[in-house]
Amino acid sequence: MSTEIKAYGAKDKGAALKEMTIERRDTQPKDVKIKITYCGVCHSDIHTVENDWGNSKYPVVPGHEIIGEVLEVGDKVKNFKKGDLVGVGCMVDSCRECDPCKKDLEQFCQEGMVGTYNGKDKHLGVHTFGGYSQQITVDEHFVLSIPENLDIKAVAPLLCAGITTYSPLNHWNIKEGMKVGVVGLGGLGHMGIKFSHAMGAETIMITTSESKKEDAKRLGADGVLISKDDEAMKKHRGSFDFILNTVPVSHDVNPYLQLLTIDGTMCMVGAIEPLPEVHGGNLIMGRKNIAGSLIGGIKETQQMLDFCGKHNIVSDVEMIDMDNINKAYKRVQDSDVKYRFVIDMESLK
Amino acid sequence: MSTEIKAYGAKDKGAALKEMTIERRDTQPKDVKIKITYCGVCHSDIHTVENDWGNSKYPVVPGHEIIGEVLEVGDKVKNFKKGDLVGVGCMVDSCRECDPCKKDLEQFCQEGMVGTYNGKDKHLGVHTFGGYSQQITVDEHFVLSIPENLDIKAVAPLLCAGITTYSPLNHWNIKEGMKVGVVGLGGLGHMGIKFSHAMGAETIMITTSESKKEDAKRLGADGVLISKDDEAMKKHRGSFDFILNTVPVSHDVNPYLQLLTIDGTMCMVGAIEPLPEVHGGNLIMGRKNIAGSLIGGIKETQQMLDFCGKHNIVSDVEMIDMDNINKAYKRVQDSDVKYRFVIDMESLK
Repeated sequence: MSTEIKAYGAKDKGAALKEMTIERRDTQPKDVKIKITYCGVCHSDIHTVENDWGNSKYPVVPGHEIIGEVLEVGDKVKNFKKGDLVGVGCMVDSCRECDPCKKDLEQFCQEGMVGTYNGKDKHLGVHTFGGYSQQITVDEHFVLSIPENLDIKAVAPLLCAGITTYSPLNHWNIKEGMKVGVVGLGGLGHMGIKFSHAMGAETIMITTSESKKEDAKRLGADGVLISKDDEAMKKHRGSFDFILNTVPVSHDVNPYLQLLTIDGTMCMVGAIEPLPEVHGGNLIMGRKNIAGSLIGGIKETQQMLDFCGKHNIVSDVEMIDMDNINKAYKRVQDSDVKYRFVIDMESLK
Repeated sequence: MSTEIKAYGAKDKGAALKEMTIERRDTQPKDVKIKITYCGVCHSDIHTVENDWGNSKYPVVPGHEIIGEVLEVGDKVKNFKKGDLVGVGCMVDSCRECDPCKKDLEQFCQEGMVGTYNGKDKHLGVHTFGGYSQQITVDEHFVLSIPENLDIKAVAPLLCAGITTYSPLNHWNIKEGMKVGVVGLGGLGHMGIKFSHAMGAETIMITTSESKKEDAKRLGADGVLISKDDEAMKKHRGSFDFILNTVPVSHDVNPYLQLLTIDGTMCMVGAIEPLPEVHGGNLIMGRKNIAGSLIGGIKETQQMLDFCGKHNIVSDVEMIDMDNINKAYKRVQDSDVKYRFVIDMESLK
């Protein structure tokens, strides 16, 4: 009922990743069996390997920015055929019947979405294994079509970093005439700038570091605001319609709230941890909002990929071979990557 | 150019309120001169007397929940005439030309709204004096019409407590089919329940105290959720479309965020101070929002008064004479009032 394939994973908390063997289920009627060609490296992969969120199950086989080619489809699959270029993101299943699932918000499934790795596998009764592997088998509902005109290896990070930043910009209806700030220039932030720019908004990179100015402009920022520069921060006070905050760790959000205009929103997509004191006055004066957003539903993920096809948007990537993954993790932790590592899965043989 | 009238105010930080004499400007072309008949007692009055916000100017004559009768109007006044029943709330002026002013959000005037007391008086060059006085003279733009069918003395608190709670419920479009929580049962909270109920939402009072159950139901709550009851809080998790948080002091908002459904909003109207750690995960999981709201614009305040006329809504009040104000302040500080003191200004003679 299952096939053994090669994968790369961690046997224990914080262990170096090594080659291992995992099982993939045989193709079910609604399944798509995919040969994985590229897989992005997301900071969440590292958090899970290190059990930073306390819910890791070992062995962990990370990877939820998956690009591949369809090897086989079940006999009830409608939308995919052998040879198709496809993607899989952070989810491989959900209940499909609850209110959020019916509203195309599978990421908020009331029974809990099934993560691409470390999720509860309904088929084999174990936990799910991600994209650092040769193949994956996924219900077609959770398989995405990839626009053929894009540089495929640089599409992989769109499946997580892309949808995580596209979804809030889309939900809050970012468009021409608006001023958008993107806080933090990493895997998420660099996609935020590209999307906000493509949606037509005046896009300002907000960063602590002068050194990121040039790169931000190359990525599409109309301006750069150095958050340590009090005068500059004052000048921009009350002027932003929306701020996408991609900072992945706890930090003081009050200076950013002061940048918002009346009815403005700052949306958090990085910091899944306690934020230090938020001043009530920063919300009350100007009817401002702090919100959060988590990836995006499958329908919206396809919409994001189509948007990328139309606007020729991909991630900025650095390619690695599978056996360099541990070095790459170290560099991600040191913020030494512009802006996403992608594994060439041909290197796992 | 001005007239001396009697008022009640504090000469210094924290001083007991005493009778004093203040000046009111002569009626200008667009002014309405009002004989004050009732004035509500707001917690902000006490904060200003005690200089809790650090910007008080003495003497402080508090009072921004003003009801009165028109004595005289300037020759360019269009909407009021002698004898009309009118109200004045928290603002008596603003620039009228900035973007927020043009959008009927005078409370967020870019030059700063002019508070009914402790604001910058453009006419006499001093600071403004509030409604604990015999008369007030106000530009007609900031004068409200009072529906004749209501119990007038109980209308006074609508000018601050009323609009502060009506505005967010109106802005977030509360209606039948929604579930709304109101946190805190005081001057603001009791109005929040009445409005949410009148707008047709299922309205749940959220309180720490069992003793408030009966009163909350009398005011219109469909149910009461005791926030210290972990089981009850779990049962309601993820079910509220909107929470109006009226708690006037810093407190942990995370348990309330967990009560919100996907895309739900909690709006702060009381705590103009730092809130302890807000967990980013409570925003990200479910795309939830924390917002704030400050009173409401003049147009919306009139809309609120008309809504009250239609639905026969007033505040629950306890009447006092002017010379009992210092005792009343003590009782407000001890939360010993149901739910708003109103001064019968006939007692200042």
